[in-house]
Amino acid sequence: MSQFESVTLVKQANVYFDGKVTSRTVLFADGTKKTLGIMLPGDYEFGTDAKEIMEILAGDLKVLLPGESEWTHIQGKGEFTVPGNAKFKLQVAVVTDYCCSYITE
Amino acid sequence: MSQFESVTLVKQANVYFDGKVTSRTVLFADGTKKTLGIMLPGDYEFGTDAKEIMEILAGDLKVLLPGESEWTHIQGKGEFTVPGNAKFKLQVAVVTDYCCSYITE
Repeated sequence: MSQFESVTLVKQANVYFDGKVTSRTVLFADGTKKTLGIMLPGDYEFGTDAKEIMEILAGDLKVLLPGESEWTHIQGKGEFTVPGNAKFKLQVAVVTDYCCSYITE
Repeated sequence: MSQFESVTLVKQANVYFDGKVTSRTVLFADGTKKTLGIMLPGDYEFGTDAKEIMEILAGDLKVLLPGESEWTHIQGKGEFTVPGNAKFKLQVAVVTDYCCSYITE
């Protein structure tokens, strides 16, 4: 899907790591939430509340998922899932465009 | 207005200056268009096609509008207008969150 229709978009950006990671929040009519974001090159650790499905729209990054000892490499497009209440690490090599879906179960 | 409702949001980001300036495109039912964007610190020159109204949601930057010799300083929130088919310069001091409205006349 190349665009989201009939959504509510929160105007103010979410800003993390001095602006090296930023996103906008998108609210859907069914009550679900996504963020569309940009990550600049760098190493980051994130924590989840809800389960998250991270769709990489464009970029190059390595992901260390919780409980894993090996990094997963995504070049171009990709997707990974992070459980709720967990931490994961990213090594972002180039400007990376992502869409994060929050799954409340 | 803190959020836009019933809009279409283009999923893919617009990326400029190696990701130091990024935005997302928002389409409104009346046919108008805005972008919500982030600028990291740096010096930039932009060109317009349509007339643009730049609303600064949060940030600190100086603006040199076309034909002007003096820079305008915006700290926090602010707004400036750029005519169509023109160039303007920005000196962005801190991470700056903006909303750009494109005015077709």
